[in-house]
Amino acid sequence: MPIITFQPSGKQIKARAGDDLITLLKKAEIELDYQCGGKGTCGKCVVKIQSGKVDSDSFGKLSREEISDGYICACRTKITDQDAVVRIPNQVAYVNDSVSDISDDVKLIQQDLFPTHIDYNPLAVKWLIQVPLPKSQDGLSDIDRLTRQIQADWGPKRVIYPLSVIRKAADIIRQESGAITIILIREPEDYHVVGLEPGDTTEKLFGIAVDIGTTTVAVQLSNLSQAKTIGTSTAYNAQIKCGLDIISRINYANRPERLEELRQLILGTINHLIEQIITTRRVGKMEISNAVLSGNTTMIHLLLGLKPEYIRLEPYTPTLLSVPYVTAHDVGIDINPDAWLYFSPCVGSYVGGDITAGLLCTDLATDSEEINLYIDIGTNGEIVLGNKEFLVSCACSAGPAFEGGGIEDGMRAAIGAIDKVEIDRESGEARYSTIGNAKPVGICGTGIISLLANLLLTGCIDPAGRLNRERKNPAITVSGKKAMYTIVPADQSGTSGAIKISEIEIENIIRAKAAIYSACCLITKQLEISFDDVSNIYIAGGFGRFLDLNNAKIIGLIPDQPLDKFRYIGNASLIGSSMILISQDFREKQIRLANRMTYIDLSTDSSYMDQYTAALFMPHTDHSLFPSVDELIKETNKIPSEK
Amino acid sequence: MPIITFQPSGKQIKARAGDDLITLLKKAEIELDYQCGGKGTCGKCVVKIQSGKVDSDSFGKLSREEISDGYICACRTKITDQDAVVRIPNQVAYVNDSVSDISDDVKLIQQDLFPTHIDYNPLAVKWLIQVPLPKSQDGLSDIDRLTRQIQADWGPKRVIYPLSVIRKAADIIRQESGAITIILIREPEDYHVVGLEPGDTTEKLFGIAVDIGTTTVAVQLSNLSQAKTIGTSTAYNAQIKCGLDIISRINYANRPERLEELRQLILGTINHLIEQIITTRRVGKMEISNAVLSGNTTMIHLLLGLKPEYIRLEPYTPTLLSVPYVTAHDVGIDINPDAWLYFSPCVGSYVGGDITAGLLCTDLATDSEEINLYIDIGTNGEIVLGNKEFLVSCACSAGPAFEGGGIEDGMRAAIGAIDKVEIDRESGEARYSTIGNAKPVGICGTGIISLLANLLLTGCIDPAGRLNRERKNPAITVSGKKAMYTIVPADQSGTSGAIKISEIEIENIIRAKAAIYSACCLITKQLEISFDDVSNIYIAGGFGRFLDLNNAKIIGLIPDQPLDKFRYIGNASLIGSSMILISQDFREKQIRLANRMTYIDLSTDSSYMDQYTAALFMPHTDHSLFPSVDELIKETNKIPSEK
Repeated sequence: MPIITFQPSGKQIKARAGDDLITLLKKAEIELDYQCGGKGTCGKCVVKIQSGKVDSDSFGKLSREEISDGYICACRTKITDQDAVVRIPNQVAYVNDSVSDISDDVKLIQQDLFPTHIDYNPLAVKWLIQVPLPKSQDGLSDIDRLTRQIQADWGPKRVIYPLSVIRKAADIIRQESGAITIILIREPEDYHVVGLEPGDTTEKLFGIAVDIGTTTVAVQLSNLSQAKTIGTSTAYNAQIKCGLDIISRINYANRPERLEELRQLILGTINHLIEQIITTRRVGKMEISNAVLSGNTTMIHLLLGLKPEYIRLEPYTPTLLSVPYVTAHDVGIDINPDAWLYFSPCVGSYVGGDITAGLLCTDLATDSEEINLYIDIGTNGEIVLGNKEFLVSCACSAGPAFEGGGIEDGMRAAIGAIDKVEIDRESGEARYSTIGNAKPVGICGTGIISLLANLLLTGCIDPAGRLNRERKNPAITVSGKKAMYTIVPADQSGTSGAIKISEIEIENIIRAKAAIYSACCLITKQLEISFDDVSNIYIAGGFGRFLDLNNAKIIGLIPDQPLDKFRYIGNASLIGSSMILISQDFREKQIRLANRMTYIDLSTDSSYMDQYTAALFMPHTDHSLFPSVDELIKETNKIPSEK
Repeated sequence: MPIITFQPSGKQIKARAGDDLITLLKKAEIELDYQCGGKGTCGKCVVKIQSGKVDSDSFGKLSREEISDGYICACRTKITDQDAVVRIPNQVAYVNDSVSDISDDVKLIQQDLFPTHIDYNPLAVKWLIQVPLPKSQDGLSDIDRLTRQIQADWGPKRVIYPLSVIRKAADIIRQESGAITIILIREPEDYHVVGLEPGDTTEKLFGIAVDIGTTTVAVQLSNLSQAKTIGTSTAYNAQIKCGLDIISRINYANRPERLEELRQLILGTINHLIEQIITTRRVGKMEISNAVLSGNTTMIHLLLGLKPEYIRLEPYTPTLLSVPYVTAHDVGIDINPDAWLYFSPCVGSYVGGDITAGLLCTDLATDSEEINLYIDIGTNGEIVLGNKEFLVSCACSAGPAFEGGGIEDGMRAAIGAIDKVEIDRESGEARYSTIGNAKPVGICGTGIISLLANLLLTGCIDPAGRLNRERKNPAITVSGKKAMYTIVPADQSGTSGAIKISEIEIENIIRAKAAIYSACCLITKQLEISFDDVSNIYIAGGFGRFLDLNNAKIIGLIPDQPLDKFRYIGNASLIGSSMILISQDFREKQIRLANRMTYIDLSTDSSYMDQYTAALFMPHTDHSLFPSVDELIKETNKIPSEK
């Protein structure tokens, strides 16, 4: 029985000779956008046969070069009796998700930035209440008595009940002689009741934080009664198959049924992650009574089913920046249906709630006099610069390269991902470490940065990212105009082929780093500040376990500033969201941040293209900004190798 | 092909010899509660064959008397080749509904009680708003600009949007250069947005008032922009098949699936009436942006899916008396899903929102010094007594007789209903008029009252309701211990049989009138007031087009007071609900009424049974309260006959 392995997910399916490849893809839950219905004319289901032999008659639709590279149309292809490795190109497949312990993530922040004194004050609270039993002729209904008791115990706000809670109130109030636990959201004017339970259940109260990235989605579960995060689950955003970046998603959503498709896809990802984490942590869905969701403005529009088109069209005005009170039921999130979904406020079309949440993990959320810089490296890069006097943000499109997207062997920071690479100066071959010390199956963001820095320092690539064809190096293979660097040969790989990076992919990465670096330059320039004036530089993003800042500087992704100025804070959006879940004060802090932040549109700055072009070298063309590669090599030889 | 006619609905079905009767009942949408699944053992599907021949083997389960009366189990019965008339006993079938013009209903009140000066101030309003077009870099989303404009034009309340409105906002705001019509509910602290439409649509704004009775349901459509009611639609409550009165409905609802069944049945009735009226009045569902619903406490619990059990159990405490903000979507009412459903506040377990709505049509809602009495004659009778100083209410169970329920030939006040009867003194035979001058098909509440009064005055019945067997009268037929009065012989009837009333049914009606009259007595007695102290007596109820108050006094339904004290105000609950729809002031007035009303539980008064028993004669056993029958006959001969 032939075994078909799909990359980059690594998913394996047992097949039979003669099986349609398209059927196997569906079986593996890899969805491609087939438009021609299997005629082989739309070219949407093109995949690459990395190894093995298949029987395909789709070659007419593909270029000679594509055919020689192993590309075929899945819809015109049958399996033979051989094993095969099939790679889905230009796509980040929906790989196996992982549930991680929170410790790693929080460690990045907790030392001094994570507030040492958390005022325990969660958005959703559980209160034990003693409701008087019904009395004859007092003229009070069950809900009247409940409302009066809440107001007597906790102050005279309006109490708002959903029908589902009212429906079970009569029984619950009578169950334990009137002792009930009420779950509610405290708003300035109102108490929103989320649930009622008989007796004292105040110990069981959970909430989730959700970071909705264009490429990666993460869900973090917290025990609200203990103010403790208890697990994180991450996966690729299932919308990826409809476009790798924000603009292509907006374009895809141009018909109502496709907007609905995108909404269902992101809902599917989030609900799948929730299911995964509550199963491993043994928490019931109905016990999750609150959620904080943070994402860029487009992702929030897509999740709510709002037409994102006007974000892309001048004057780039979104439908909303602050989401009103909506329940899990309204949106389709699979927790207690009456749970409140609090959305981190967005600042503009391209600076979203992920940024206002992430800033909570930095000194930018404090009354600091010092000027601080926040760089969120994702599919969109967002930069925030400010202190207690001013707060300015901008955004740039970097693409998903640093999250493993758009790179054939790229992957999320999950088990088996190469997260660190060293290049042997003599042979030019790579040594690497992987997450979980597993056999390597791909390379994640930190691995990519580490790889490029080391390729540069060992002369395997030049500052423009061209592989050195002159030097004798078994890892570099050239075919026509195309060159490729092999990180892991096929025989050492955990997938069925070698793990490689092409020159074209290296160029992609350089473009991504150039976009982010030039945005940093421009925002400082516009405010007439130099990087030397900046006290702290926070780097956020889901690269991997850690980011080697020296490597990031070597490739010119981040400014050439002393290492002690930098702090890598990982998925700050997720951590910030969990902080809000546990403390109302952080919500208020975040609203203040969002209100005082201004947004600069880089596309209107005429010098942006110059800045960007100048940054398309590693580290940079301007040697007043970065040392030259030669200087870097000297420098690196002096400091002990990274640990 | 035999034709099967079902009574009291008059529905006809073409059948074939050998058809199962139960199948035909289902086809005619007459639902019976079959518990034995067709074995003929539960006796729940017993129907009466009024004429024609059927083939039944169900006789073993029925008494000899029942069999001779034509009763059979529908589940054990097949149709022969003959036509048949099948009557569903002890049930008010779901007859054809009628849509009436509002004029008749409102006329009853409008003269002086319907407020002559209506402050036009509907709960739901439509405002034309000019939203500024999106501007670059102003940091405002579409919803931000909309909110600011609403607040600038109408004052700084919080604006609450449902997701469905947000989803279409971006397009609508851009459609007519920012000119939009917004539909909203004005609450003290908030504006609740119900809808958005491009351009100026302020002329198209509709609302519905719904009166939810135990037996009868009515929907009235109003044009809110013109403050005008434009049609009424009424039907029997489809829950009737689960029990004729409140207590039997509560008992029926003792399992969750049956509670859900009752909820679906009343929803079905209401949505059917809405469909009917909007079709005849050519109004779109989505144009209905508000609803005011008034019903007794149990009906409201059943509509909302709240367990009604605790209403029946000591200390008779309902889940709620005031319903929180719920939308049409939340409850399942088929209008604009975001429309607010305002429920008239209930006062106690047995005094509901229909009473607080109905009182708005009376001087009891004004600051009158005079003491007024309100009698709502329905399946439950509710009595309110008070002036500006005090307001006391009580309730009694009368049964559905005055709405045509529980009477074999009884029917709703619809086309073909006998609404007035005179008895020829010589022959003892009846003359009658019908609603719509149609062929008679049954008798409605006013007809029943008119019939009983005239039978009494002509000596056809005695004060206890026994038919006069001595006198030669072709209309009176006696079979064993049972006697029957024929109102319409079969050959003049619009149905396939005669229209009759039995002695047992007359007893039922006397019990109903005794319950209501004795409740009136008791409430005045408890407050140490005599009927002479009462200035105005309002009679509400859905009897028919009009109520002949003299006849009502003759049978002892209402106190023996001068006719000019009385005012028959018809379905005051419905009219009051429409008034609230059109004016916020009436809503506030109603809330004040509900808050200051106290409820007396008659069942705790030891003299209630004595009062009730004394009232089981026509007009009454106590000749200090009513004239004797002889005096009445003399009196009646003096005044011109009713017109």
